[in-house]
Amino acid sequence: MYTLVPFDARDPNSRLAPVLDPDERRALAAAMLRDVLDTVREAGGTPRVVSTVELVPPFDVDTPVIVDDRSLSTAIGARLDGDGDGEFANDGGTAVVMSDLAIATPAALRRAFVRPAAGEVAAAPGRGGGTNVLVVRHPDFRPDYHGTSFDDHRQIADEIGAPFRPVDSFRLAIDVDGPDDLPEVLLHGRGRAAEWLADEGFSVEVEAGDARVTRDPGPGVGEH
Amino acid sequence: MYTLVPFDARDPNSRLAPVLDPDERRALAAAMLRDVLDTVREAGGTPRVVSTVELVPPFDVDTPVIVDDRSLSTAIGARLDGDGDGEFANDGGTAVVMSDLAIATPAALRRAFVRPAAGEVAAAPGRGGGTNVLVVRHPDFRPDYHGTSFDDHRQIADEIGAPFRPVDSFRLAIDVDGPDDLPEVLLHGRGRAAEWLADEGFSVEVEAGDARVTRDPGPGVGEH
Repeated sequence: MYTLVPFDARDPNSRLAPVLDPDERRALAAAMLRDVLDTVREAGGTPRVVSTVELVPPFDVDTPVIVDDRSLSTAIGARLDGDGDGEFANDGGTAVVMSDLAIATPAALRRAFVRPAAGEVAAAPGRGGGTNVLVVRHPDFRPDYHGTSFDDHRQIADEIGAPFRPVDSFRLAIDVDGPDDLPEVLLHGRGRAAEWLADEGFSVEVEAGDARVTRDPGPGVGEH
Repeated sequence: MYTLVPFDARDPNSRLAPVLDPDERRALAAAMLRDVLDTVREAGGTPRVVSTVELVPPFDVDTPVIVDDRSLSTAIGARLDGDGDGEFANDGGTAVVMSDLAIATPAALRRAFVRPAAGEVAAAPGRGGGTNVLVVRHPDFRPDYHGTSFDDHRQIADEIGAPFRPVDSFRLAIDVDGPDDLPEVLLHGRGRAAEWLADEGFSVEVEAGDARVTRDPGPGVGEH
């Protein structure tokens, strides 16, 4: 499955500012991106990063990068029929997987990859109405990632007569957005992102039924 | 599948206080409880409410109610081997489904019901580390709902030698806890709870990528 992984290297994870400084946010974003690329490959996908800018450290990856600074919907929409060299074609399916799905597993992604038949579109919702995974097997489908895109994608599929197949997965629904999402990474993640958070002293605390992360300043505090 | 649905009628949904008054919180809790009971039946389950107190309106339901004011873990643990009359036995499986799974569908619940083989335990995590659905097919398993219970349930299963089968479902992961969960109900719910929220003037607004509910005071404001 030809799989596009959009990535915006400009100020990633800005909504984690209450708990992480800019360098830390970049480190976590890079860890999540690499986790997702591994997960795509383990699920049988062939990933391509679609980035707003050339990727330099800490975002360097061992995966081909397509630079396109247009809007997410435009940059993705232009590439749903593959990479133009005929190796990948839309009727075989093109997937779009967000780069911050820190608890996605190959099994969950495989369920999404095989969900649509030819002529259909499948999608896994994110929390808050977004679309975390999209699998397009219809030549006329173009995405619109603005706002509550999961419902919009259902409607776009309806309009072109493409059956819409939702994918019901918790592991695909969690994208790392605000501090509220970090407990899920520590509780369920098994990759670099979860390890990075643990190494940085984060752990999960449950208070009155509410899970939050707390940070142990550790021995290195004040040294950097 | 014999299915226990725990319900605490004392101050339900207290963490929705910022957006709903006590009567409204009770109305929403009753709507969610009835939605869940219907969903259990449509998934092929036989529901029993396990309540801390006798249920009176607005919580009256057309389902047998077992009153037990002990802790959730104790009240559920005492009933995992069925209702004592031999009609339901643990080796056929007993499920525990939280009463606030407002976007659960019969299909998602059925996936959980069939997940464990005899001698196994299956569970669907909730956001924040909880256990939203538990399906027990081992005679020695006893739950512990305190804290991050999903990992604890995995450990309890390990200790008694019961294979632990996670159920990866977004629809089972969303329990209605705080205001942050209400967008999911409006976006994905199809039952009484979603209808109640819409009738009360709630809708979803996306601001800077963050989905929230807003409330239109409507024509009736100030009249009640």
